[in-house]
Amino acid sequence: MNRKALYPGTFDPVTYGHLDIMERASRIYDCVFIGVAHSKEKKPLFSVKERVSMLKNATRHLKNVEIEDFKGLVINHAKRKKTCVIIRGLRMISDFEFEFQMALTNRKLSEDIETIFMMTNDSYSYLSSKLIKEAVSLGADVKSFVPASVAKKLKIKLSK
Amino acid sequence: MNRKALYPGTFDPVTYGHLDIMERASRIYDCVFIGVAHSKEKKPLFSVKERVSMLKNATRHLKNVEIEDFKGLVINHAKRKKTCVIIRGLRMISDFEFEFQMALTNRKLSEDIETIFMMTNDSYSYLSSKLIKEAVSLGADVKSFVPASVAKKLKIKLSK
Amino acid sequence: MNRKALYPGTFDPVTYGHLDIMERASRIYDCVFIGVAHSKEKKPLFSVKERVSMLKNATRHLKNVEIEDFKGLVINHAKRKKTCVIIRGLRMISDFEFEFQMALTNRKLSEDIETIFMMTNDSYSYLSSKLIKEAVSLGADVKSFVPASVAKKLKIKLSK
Amino acid sequence: MNRKALYPGTFDPVTYGHLDIMERASRIYDCVFIGVAHSKEKKPLFSVKERVSMLKNATRHLKNVEIEDFKGLVINHAKRKKTCVIIRGLRMISDFEFEFQMALTNRKLSEDIETIFMMTNDSYSYLSSKLIKEAVSLGADVKSFVPASVAKKLKIKLSK
Amino acid sequence: MNRKALYPGTFDPVTYGHLDIMERASRIYDCVFIGVAHSKEKKPLFSVKERVSMLKNATRHLKNVEIEDFKGLVINHAKRKKTCVIIRGLRMISDFEFEFQMALTNRKLSEDIETIFMMTNDSYSYLSSKLIKEAVSLGADVKSFVPASVAKKLKIKLSK
Amino acid sequence: MNRKALYPGTFDPVTYGHLDIMERASRIYDCVFIGVAHSKEKKPLFSVKERVSMLKNATRHLKNVEIEDFKGLVINHAKRKKTCVIIRGLRMISDFEFEFQMALTNRKLSEDIETIFMMTNDSYSYLSSKLIKEAVSLGADVKSFVPASVAKKLKIKLSK
Repeated sequence: MNRKALYPGTFDPVTYGHLDIMERASRIYDCVFIGVAHSKEKKPLFSVKERVSMLKNATRHLKNVEIEDFKGLVINHAKRKKTCVIIRGLRMISDFEFEFQMALTNRKLSEDIETIFMMTNDSYSYLSSKLIKEAVSLGADVKSFVPASVAKKLKIKLSK
Repeated sequence: MNRKALYPGTFDPVTYGHLDIMERASRIYDCVFIGVAHSKEKKPLFSVKERVSMLKNATRHLKNVEIEDFKGLVINHAKRKKTCVIIRGLRMISDFEFEFQMALTNRKLSEDIETIFMMTNDSYSYLSSKLIKEAVSLGADVKSFVPASVAKKLKIKLSK
Repeated sequence: MNRKALYPGTFDPVTYGHLDIMERASRIYDCVFIGVAHSKEKKPLFSVKERVSMLKNATRHLKNVEIEDFKGLVINHAKRKKTCVIIRGLRMISDFEFEFQMALTNRKLSEDIETIFMMTNDSYSYLSSKLIKEAVSLGADVKSFVPASVAKKLKIKLSK
Repeated sequence: MNRKALYPGTFDPVTYGHLDIMERASRIYDCVFIGVAHSKEKKPLFSVKERVSMLKNATRHLKNVEIEDFKGLVINHAKRKKTCVIIRGLRMISDFEFEFQMALTNRKLSEDIETIFMMTNDSYSYLSSKLIKEAVSLGADVKSFVPASVAKKLKIKLSK
Repeated sequence: MNRKALYPGTFDPVTYGHLDIMERASRIYDCVFIGVAHSKEKKPLFSVKERVSMLKNATRHLKNVEIEDFKGLVINHAKRKKTCVIIRGLRMISDFEFEFQMALTNRKLSEDIETIFMMTNDSYSYLSSKLIKEAVSLGADVKSFVPASVAKKLKIKLSK
Repeated sequence: MNRKALYPGTFDPVTYGHLDIMERASRIYDCVFIGVAHSKEKKPLFSVKERVSMLKNATRHLKNVEIEDFKGLVINHAKRKKTCVIIRGLRMISDFEFEFQMALTNRKLSEDIETIFMMTNDSYSYLSSKLIKEAVSLGADVKSFVPASVAKKLKIKLSK
C-alpha cells in the first residue's frame, strides 16, 4: 500500500496553520509532498520560487517532507508523484464548503485519488494568508502567525 | 392563477446542475422562462449571445422552456414576462446565504414576486461554473459536468 | 398541469411564520393542502385535533387552503392528495440542513414529487414553535409570535 | 472603567443596518466613535470624505456619536481613541465567519481590546452595501435600504 | 449610563470557556451578574445550588462578578438586576444560530435590553458542557476543560 | 509507520454512507478497525451484538476490515488497537461542527492520535441512521439507503 500523500496549496505565504498540518501529516505518512501551485489567476504576492524557498526554510526539521511546485490539476500532480491521497487542512472557520466542492470535483475527475481532511490546531484555526497580508499592509506585526523570516519578507514586499 | 416561472442566472456556461433545475421546473410549471443576465460586472467568459445559444442547444428536449437575455433587475424582467415566481436552484453546498440575501432584497423591491428554491440532484450539488472554468484552464476534461458541446467550447476559449 | 401543493408540518402550535408561508403559497397555487402530521415521536404539546382546529381558525381568511391531519410518510400523503409539490418554509436561521436532508430522502422515495422552499418574512425568520413553548413556560407573553387565541391556549396548557 | 466604544467599517455607503447598530450602541455606551476606514484595497465607490459626510448627516440625531476616518489597523485606531471595545454588527446572514476571523486576528495583535458583536434588527439582517450598489446600478430604487440622501448620491454615482 | 451586564446560562457545570467570557466581561463592565438558570426542562446533572457554588468557587479572583440563580425569563431577571445588557459567549463552533434565535426572541419580548456577544478564546472555542459530561462518563480526565474541583465533582456524579 | 486506522461509530444501523467510507478507508490503510460503540446513552434501536453482526455481514467483501465493539473513550480504544489514526466520515450536510468539536476534544485528551475526515459519495451525503429509522417507522421502503438485510431487520424491529 502507498505510504505517500500530497499536500497542495498556494502558500502565499506559508503560515503556522499550514506548518501545523505538515507536521501532523508527516507523522502519519512515510512521505509528504508539498505541492506549490503556480495559481497565476490568484495573482500571488510572492513568486512560486519565493514560496518554495520559504517553505523549504520552514520545514527543515521535517525529514520526510518534500517541496515542489506544479502546474495544472492537483490530481495530475498526485498521479505524477504516485500518491493516492491528497491532504487538505480544515480550519474550523471558513473554507469548508469550498474544500468540499473542490474535493468532489477532484473525485469525479479521478476516482482513484482520495482527499482526506486534517484539522489545524485550534490556535491556528482562523489564520488566513489573505488576512495576514492585509494586516501587514496596514502596519501589523505578524510574527505570531508566520515564521519570523516570512514576516520579514512580507514587510519588505508590502511596504514597497 | 399564473402558471409561468422565471429562472434567471448568468449561465457562464450552463452546467448539468442548471439543466437539472430546468427539467424539474418544466415539470411543475406551464412555462419556464430562462433569463440570461448580461452580468457585465462579473466579466463572463462567454458573451450573452453565446450563453443564450448554448442554453437553447441544451434545452431542445424541453418544450415549455424559453431562453431570453435581459438587462437590469431580475424583478423587472419577471414583470415584463408577467410571471410572479422566480426560481433559484439551491445546491447543498455554498451559495445558500447569498441566495437568501438576494431573494429578500428582491422581495423588498417588489412584494408581488415570490422566490422559490428548488434542489439540484445530489450528484450535481457541488457543481459551480467558476470551478469548472478553473478546472478546464488547468487541463481537465469536464464532460461529466457540462454537455459535450459546452465542454468543447470551454476548451477552445480557455486554451487561447 | 397540477395546481395543488402540500404544506406539511407538525404545527405544535402554528406560528406567524407558518401563516406567512401559507399566505404566500395560497397566492401561487390554486389549492394549498396543510398536512398536520401526527408526529407521535415528537410528543407534541397539543393533540392533532387541537392543532388542526387552531390552524382552521387561523386560516379562515385563506379561501384556497385546506387543513387535514395525516399519518405515515409525507410523500404518501402528497400522492393521496394528488399533488406533486411539497412546500417547506425556510427560515433564514436554522433548519436548512435538516430540510435538505428530508427533501433528498423524500426525493429518493418518490422521484415524482418535488420539494420547493419558500422564505418566511424576515420578521418571522427566527420563530420556532419550540422556543415559543419554552418562552411561555417561563412566563412570556407571545402575542407577537402566534395568533392571540393560540397564545391563550399555550398559556393554559403550560401553566397547568 | 472606560465608557467608549469604536464601531469601525468602510461604510460605502452607510445603510439602515449600520445605523441600527449605531443607535443601539449609543444607548449602551457613553460615546461611540465611528471609524471610517480608508480601505483603498476595496476600491470604494465613495471617497472617504464623502463617506464621512454621509455618516455625519445620517447620525445627527445621535448626540454621543463621533465620526472620523482612519488609516491602518483598527486596533491602533482604538488605542488612539483610548477605547478598549470594538463593536461589530452581526447580520443573521453572512459575514459571521469573516467577522470571527478578524476579531481573533485583532485579539492576537492586541489582547487589551475586546470585540463585541451586536445584532441588527431582523428587517436589516440581509442588507449589504455591495448588494445595494449592484441593485442601484441595475436600476433599483433603494430608499428602503439607505437614507434618501444616500439613495440619491448612489443614483448619481452609478448612472454616470 | 448603566455599567452592569448579565451573563446568563445553565452552567452545568461551568467550563474554562464560560470563565474566559466572565473574565473578559469583568474587564469591560463595572459589575457582571452571573445568572444561573434553573433550567428544569434540561434536567441538569448538578442542582442549581451545586452549580452556583461551583461558580462562586471558580470566580473568587473576579471582584466585580456576582453569582445568583434565577427562574423564568432571562429578560425579566435582567430587569430585576437593572441591567440593560445581556452577554452571551459565542464559540466559533456551533450554537451561533440558536443564540441568534434566542437573542431575537428576547429583543421582541423587551426592546430595552440589548444582547451582546463576546468570543471565547480560541483554545476554548469547542468546549461544551454536554461533551465534557459525556467524556467523563466514558472515563476521560477533563482537567484541561474545567477547574480541578469541578472535574472531581463530575467524576463523583458520573461514576455513581 | 503504523498502517492501521480506526473508524468508530454507533452504526444503528449501518448505512450505505458508512459502507462507502469503509471501502474508501480500506483502500488507503492496511487494516481498518470498525469500532462499534455501545452508546447506551443514545438508546440504540439495535443491540451492540446485532449492530456488529449486521456490519460483519455488510463488509464481507472487504478483506482488511475488522469489526469489534468497544466501551469507553474512542481514543482509549484506538490505543488498545495500536492505531494513531481515527477516521470520521463527513457528509456534506450536517454534523460537521459536532465532528470538529469531538475531534478537538479527542486531540486534547490524547495528542498522539490524529483524526482524519473522509467524504462520503455525493449520493450518500444526506443519509442519516436517524432519518432512516423515522422513515421506516412511517412505512417507507429504505432499500436504497441500507443493505437489503438491514432494511428487513429495520422493518421487523419498527413494526413491532
